[in-house]
Amino acid sequence: MKNIYHRPATLFQTTTPGASNVVKKVTFCLLVFLSASCMFAQQSDAFTIKSIYDKALTEGECHDWLRHLTKEIGPRLAGSPGAEAAVHSMRRLMDTLGFDTVYLQACTVPRWDRGAPATGRIINNGVIGTEELRVISLGNTIGTGPNGVTGELVEVFSLKEVEDMGAAGVAGKIVFFNRPMDPTQLQTFRAYGGAVDQRGMGLVVAARFGAKAVLVRSMTTGLDDVPHTGAVALVDDVEKIPALSVSTNDAEKISRLLRQGTVEVHLRSNGRILPPVPSYNVIGELRGTTHPDEIILVGGHLDSWDVGEGAHDDGAGCVHALQVLPLWQKIGYRPKRTFRCVLFMNEENGLAGGRAYWDASNANNEYHLAALESDSGGFTPRGFSAQAEDAVFTDYYRTINDWLPLLEPYGLHFESGGSGADISGLKSQGGLLLGFKPDSQRYFDFHHTANDVFENVNKRELELGAASITSLLYLIDKHGL
Amino acid sequence: MKNIYHRPATLFQTTTPGASNVVKKVTFCLLVFLSASCMFAQQSDAFTIKSIYDKALTEGECHDWLRHLTKEIGPRLAGSPGAEAAVHSMRRLMDTLGFDTVYLQACTVPRWDRGAPATGRIINNGVIGTEELRVISLGNTIGTGPNGVTGELVEVFSLKEVEDMGAAGVAGKIVFFNRPMDPTQLQTFRAYGGAVDQRGMGLVVAARFGAKAVLVRSMTTGLDDVPHTGAVALVDDVEKIPALSVSTNDAEKISRLLRQGTVEVHLRSNGRILPPVPSYNVIGELRGTTHPDEIILVGGHLDSWDVGEGAHDDGAGCVHALQVLPLWQKIGYRPKRTFRCVLFMNEENGLAGGRAYWDASNANNEYHLAALESDSGGFTPRGFSAQAEDAVFTDYYRTINDWLPLLEPYGLHFESGGSGADISGLKSQGGLLLGFKPDSQRYFDFHHTANDVFENVNKRELELGAASITSLLYLIDKHGL
Repeated sequence: MKNIYHRPATLFQTTTPGASNVVKKVTFCLLVFLSASCMFAQQSDAFTIKSIYDKALTEGECHDWLRHLTKEIGPRLAGSPGAEAAVHSMRRLMDTLGFDTVYLQACTVPRWDRGAPATGRIINNGVIGTEELRVISLGNTIGTGPNGVTGELVEVFSLKEVEDMGAAGVAGKIVFFNRPMDPTQLQTFRAYGGAVDQRGMGLVVAARFGAKAVLVRSMTTGLDDVPHTGAVALVDDVEKIPALSVSTNDAEKISRLLRQGTVEVHLRSNGRILPPVPSYNVIGELRGTTHPDEIILVGGHLDSWDVGEGAHDDGAGCVHALQVLPLWQKIGYRPKRTFRCVLFMNEENGLAGGRAYWDASNANNEYHLAALESDSGGFTPRGFSAQAEDAVFTDYYRTINDWLPLLEPYGLHFESGGSGADISGLKSQGGLLLGFKPDSQRYFDFHHTANDVFENVNKRELELGAASITSLLYLIDKHGL
Repeated sequence: MKNIYHRPATLFQTTTPGASNVVKKVTFCLLVFLSASCMFAQQSDAFTIKSIYDKALTEGECHDWLRHLTKEIGPRLAGSPGAEAAVHSMRRLMDTLGFDTVYLQACTVPRWDRGAPATGRIINNGVIGTEELRVISLGNTIGTGPNGVTGELVEVFSLKEVEDMGAAGVAGKIVFFNRPMDPTQLQTFRAYGGAVDQRGMGLVVAARFGAKAVLVRSMTTGLDDVPHTGAVALVDDVEKIPALSVSTNDAEKISRLLRQGTVEVHLRSNGRILPPVPSYNVIGELRGTTHPDEIILVGGHLDSWDVGEGAHDDGAGCVHALQVLPLWQKIGYRPKRTFRCVLFMNEENGLAGGRAYWDASNANNEYHLAALESDSGGFTPRGFSAQAEDAVFTDYYRTINDWLPLLEPYGLHFESGGSGADISGLKSQGGLLLGFKPDSQRYFDFHHTANDVFENVNKRELELGAASITSLLYLIDKHGL
């Protein structure tokens, strides 16, 4: 602040010697006025942001909303009764939060049913063993049928290995993808990104060469007994085969056995692909006071996997998004731009909600000045990732980084990178896309597992996330980009 | 790095026109050499720090050591069998870690026994109610006797309120300290610092005016059912009275009842103050190769409260400290300075170990160039607090902040502030005292409670803490301060 005060005096010294005293005085006063205004604006923003954090930590409702979403509604796989209940419950909640319009946006979602829990056992001397492997069916996959599938495991560490082996190596066998997530990646999402091709594409690659099933090492950096589900990609011209995930401890155990010789397993899964059904995004909107044609969006995805309660993924993101407008109201801030809170449907296994939203938005020539998705859990905030079209990115990135003095005291920083699956189709509108980035160390302890429950979300960490998002969107709404 | 490469060329352009070509060439070569060396040093440090993190995340033993300390040994209150077992077990462990000397340093610790769990009930119409309040005896306190204590509660929010009331207000009553920790403090330790006087000094202040007992709101920002223990100060000329802590939910409930009228409670606690016993700090030392008279210390405290397992407080700090030398060995680094790992005894309720250590060190005219304590839990690292004598602090602080480009990629920053209770008496030696500062949002969910168990420590977060500490101490050892 001292520097800002001093700046006008310095400038005054360097005005040309011929300038009259009157001009000098006017210039001086103007500069003092401008820099004082600038200082006042910074102070005012700092004060507002502090108020947002104080309100989030003392009057925030997001933890209670998350309890409702996880404990009263529970898992919310697209097309399931839980997802339907969540749509209607969140619509009713939004009706109480001060939006001027709350509505549902239709989309058609794939429907998948896990059936009874999958089982997996190692075969010893032709006899199915008694010890259960910790396995779980991957999403969108067919079941093995009541008799299960028995086959020899072929351990691989990449998709390319399967392609290199071809049918000679994998036909009639069960392909076991066992490349671990890289624990030396500080951001666990990068480690995930480096391993998840096995889960996403492993089935198609293995099926193309005649494999009878796929077993994938669970997506976590840790060694534990918890299998992780998640989506697999399906391709029309490739046969559907069963695909399961196995806990990292059991993956290690199988790998040890494979070093001693052939390993056969018996797998049974019960997934069913059902006809698509209608579902909805839930949207709340408040028209902007002075720039109604510029939209600022905040969102999370309302669907979750069918195991656990979808607490971090993505109940946390939903309640973060819901908390923004109430926090603005608590501090008496009304947005200049049109503010939209969107709870997207079907991010996990189809992205039907995201597509429906951006297709409609692009067709209507809407302009999202900024869109932010929270889909990395309810942990202590570390900052935001930002992306935009190349032509505008540098300018946007400079603008948001100019706000760092206001955000760094809260541990927030910016990085260039992906934003969120549900908002990615808005990029062509030319606005700024943001992803909320909390600390990622614990995320893959819970992600897509039975452990993703309310009890594993810390109230303060969740509230700080809501405050961080609300503060950044306040700056964007107030100052533009 | 590009800039460093370019710097010599720029300087070369600005040498005086009269200088001979030979001088120019020598100057140029020298500058290239120096800046390349500098660049190489920075690159080399960056590479070493990356290696430290990689080793911690792939070969770190600290999580296994913590499992041993919490699950096999368990709680370790000073003077208890658990503390004694921990001393001998950690000594044996240190014997395997590459120190050239491992020894015990004697200290005399106070001994306190909680006895059977405390109970608390509200009295309704003269009859003791059936519903149990969640209470716990505070450390170092006497019990109520087998019949318990019955008394009217006087709710206060500060020590000063008790002093203002005096004996007329509190004599014969039970003083109920109910000022919450301030949830709007981003660092929960600051909120703790703003409330813990009630637990530490409440007994003495209330007893001085004739109160019969003290009930203190638990030290946590949350609202839950878990009572938190912790130390109270005792003063020779003030009568010892029972003091208990009550869960925040029950504190709120009592406060609501008090707004309707008088509230009487029946408390029973069973603490016993026993004669002091001998105990030990556990110390491992490796003599420095080139600066053996400069000591670099890393420590945590081996004792814990008797409830829970002392996992975050301070098992995490102990295993952080133990991990430093093995990580250096894994990357092939041998310290120039004398390196000492100290597991202090009795931090929780007496600080006998810390005092014994610094008394001996000061008496022997030792010089600790740097001492670092980890006693804020095993959460994701955020940085370090630093303190030193005024005359040297600015220089030290500038030096460590010059290393920020190497540490910020790991989310580490410095702040000025307290270091650790066990090392505070080393300040007069003129070195730098450091406190490890991980994320603090979850700490008071566990601190001094039955929930401070191994399962609540995340393996990666713990390993990252060890890597952070090892990296900073590497820079201090290699470059000095």
